[in-house]
Amino acid sequence: MQRPSGIITLYTDFGQSDPYVAIMKGVILSINPGAKIVDVTHQIPAGSIQEGGLIIKESYTYFPPGTVHVGVIDPDVGGKRRPIAMFADNYLFVGPDNGLFSAIIESQGFAAVIHLKEKKYWMPDISPTFHGRDIFAPVAAHLSLGVNPSLMGEKIDNPTTLAYPSPRKNNSDIVGEIIRVDHFGNLITNINREHLSPFLASKDLIIKVGGLTLKKISTTYNDVPDGQPLALIGSSNLLEIAINMGRAIDYLGREYGVGTRVQVSLPRLSRLAEE
Amino acid sequence: MQRPSGIITLYTDFGQSDPYVAIMKGVILSINPGAKIVDVTHQIPAGSIQEGGLIIKESYTYFPPGTVHVGVIDPDVGGKRRPIAMFADNYLFVGPDNGLFSAIIESQGFAAVIHLKEKKYWMPDISPTFHGRDIFAPVAAHLSLGVNPSLMGEKIDNPTTLAYPSPRKNNSDIVGEIIRVDHFGNLITNINREHLSPFLASKDLIIKVGGLTLKKISTTYNDVPDGQPLALIGSSNLLEIAINMGRAIDYLGREYGVGTRVQVSLPRLSRLAEE
Amino acid sequence: MQRPSGIITLYTDFGQSDPYVAIMKGVILSINPGAKIVDVTHQIPAGSIQEGGLIIKESYTYFPPGTVHVGVIDPDVGGKRRPIAMFADNYLFVGPDNGLFSAIIESQGFAAVIHLKEKKYWMPDISPTFHGRDIFAPVAAHLSLGVNPSLMGEKIDNPTTLAYPSPRKNNSDIVGEIIRVDHFGNLITNINREHLSPFLASKDLIIKVGGLTLKKISTTYNDVPDGQPLALIGSSNLLEIAINMGRAIDYLGREYGVGTRVQVSLPRLSRLAEE
Repeated sequence: MQRPSGIITLYTDFGQSDPYVAIMKGVILSINPGAKIVDVTHQIPAGSIQEGGLIIKESYTYFPPGTVHVGVIDPDVGGKRRPIAMFADNYLFVGPDNGLFSAIIESQGFAAVIHLKEKKYWMPDISPTFHGRDIFAPVAAHLSLGVNPSLMGEKIDNPTTLAYPSPRKNNSDIVGEIIRVDHFGNLITNINREHLSPFLASKDLIIKVGGLTLKKISTTYNDVPDGQPLALIGSSNLLEIAINMGRAIDYLGREYGVGTRVQVSLPRLSRLAEE
Repeated sequence: MQRPSGIITLYTDFGQSDPYVAIMKGVILSINPGAKIVDVTHQIPAGSIQEGGLIIKESYTYFPPGTVHVGVIDPDVGGKRRPIAMFADNYLFVGPDNGLFSAIIESQGFAAVIHLKEKKYWMPDISPTFHGRDIFAPVAAHLSLGVNPSLMGEKIDNPTTLAYPSPRKNNSDIVGEIIRVDHFGNLITNINREHLSPFLASKDLIIKVGGLTLKKISTTYNDVPDGQPLALIGSSNLLEIAINMGRAIDYLGREYGVGTRVQVSLPRLSRLAEE
Repeated sequence: MQRPSGIITLYTDFGQSDPYVAIMKGVILSINPGAKIVDVTHQIPAGSIQEGGLIIKESYTYFPPGTVHVGVIDPDVGGKRRPIAMFADNYLFVGPDNGLFSAIIESQGFAAVIHLKEKKYWMPDISPTFHGRDIFAPVAAHLSLGVNPSLMGEKIDNPTTLAYPSPRKNNSDIVGEIIRVDHFGNLITNINREHLSPFLASKDLIIKVGGLTLKKISTTYNDVPDGQPLALIGSSNLLEIAINMGRAIDYLGREYGVGTRVQVSLPRLSRLAEE
């Protein structure tokens, strides 16, 4: 079992105008006064399990092993979905079993998933509408103190998973989609550096997204003049469409958000193949 | 005197784009480098003393006793209102004496209120427009180190209080109002579980708010189909109007925000009473 | 060399919906688990180096000496601008050499500026688009542990500076401009208390901004009735235009934002001078 780092991160769709996040912190600090709590984001769109999962996957490895990552995007709170703690890739994950941790399970598998049942690690009264406060925060605090998750409930081997869209790929084409629009208006796709590796060597590359056609993969934003569009491999190794000193989402138009098709192709190769 | 927890919470209307909150934290950490500072919210609408007070009341008890709660919703900063520290319910509260702590005083009373006057616990220069930085932050830091508030000024027994609207209740009816709209668009009322207890047993219940009529109190959001309205008792024990997977404030219309009348009635009982 | 305070502050234009800020925190805590990290703001408008610099200048001195201030407003990330660490006024500053620290250099000079080059203080792989994560966060963490910045690269004596607009002043007039609009809609100018000192004594003062004329400098917001405009010297010693219980930016009109001319004059004096 990984020794806890003492760090607890929070990923929610709670926003920052209500006291909900701070109430979770109060619960955590009442159990583990030494916990270091880091807000990752509370601005995940309400109920967006897939988007929350992507953000967890993009960030969790930057924390020390043994960090407890708490995700509360929980539209079925109080319903039949199970509360879980998962041990995977030397980190602990706590939240609803609704697919939020799918992307981690898909890439890393898991060492153990516990269906949380042991009430002595919970708040004394459980509201049907705020398990973040009453189950996930206290469980995370106890985990950060080194309590073994296997004491907290029952091992399960069938955590819920959601399918994320995967790019389709052949020798001359790769077709993916936009999966996230960031604060800068950059359009982040599900096409990663590895998918692209045979294409990167080519000088004869075409990237199509919305009405836009790009003919190379740049290294950084200012490889093109201000206001001009570009494609690059971003800091999470994903293909990204951006505007130097601008906002790609505004340049393309709001209708080209999450879900928009992105195609990378090698026309010569595909022509050769056709001949 | 309660031993300090070392935690200081911040409730303000400062927003997060300016450096004002961080300046308060710098002042606190310069006095008590070991302080644990928790932001509750900085998005209270500018000058909304009542709304700020509700958020303090909803959250303060989740922190360990001895926590110092600092509230800076202070539209009369630099005017005649007194700066105070209050000891109540095993917590310390610091802020302007403008009614911000009314809800706590109403429900818990207070052990002591100090009109802050002792300048050795303040910053050396006092700006007339930023007592958060110059008075409340340093006072909170000293309190978190265990300084007795009675050394910081003069005891007073007449802190300013604001009347919050109370629900009116008789045998067949309870009439309250919406007091807060949260990040999810849920409409939180001032009718609590205790007010409702004789009604909850009934199967013949009518809840009216805006143009909406509901006929039962649900347990959790997904007790109704997606997009449908419901009433439930929320995680703070207050009656709340919500939409499963939606936003009640958008469903009812923006005109049904804070202050909107909410009526819970038992028609049979009221009919019986009339007969 | 100043002993480190263990505090690291963050100033960015990253917003709070993406995981970018938390990733920087994970990197910092992986190197210095005891670091105290304070978010100043992540809402600097994208790429606004000058505005970021003003916010750093307004706040950095409130933290204990030896605090490491990290500023990542870095539109040329991955381009030719140098990554630097600067020691000035008993604080450490880390960020891109694009003028972000100009206001500090202008008022305090610097003891040393290091062009960061030593890769052993960086992340192992350097993305061309996220030096906040790969260079600035790890460098800040090492500085907060007491590593001497001179070990981290090469001393330079020509850090990039940006000229901030300065007020023009003569005996009867001072002409400055609005440099920041805060969360409350207050209009903060570049005219400071010192510039104004000969004018403050006068009872015959005229302040003109947008279509507005004011005839005195108030002490605090509620020196005028609710909804009325006023001028005062704010908590950072800068002349500020405000509305008591209102928003000056809405009162004057959005077109009178940053860059708007503000004139303070002494008509009698100027008339005397003309005669």
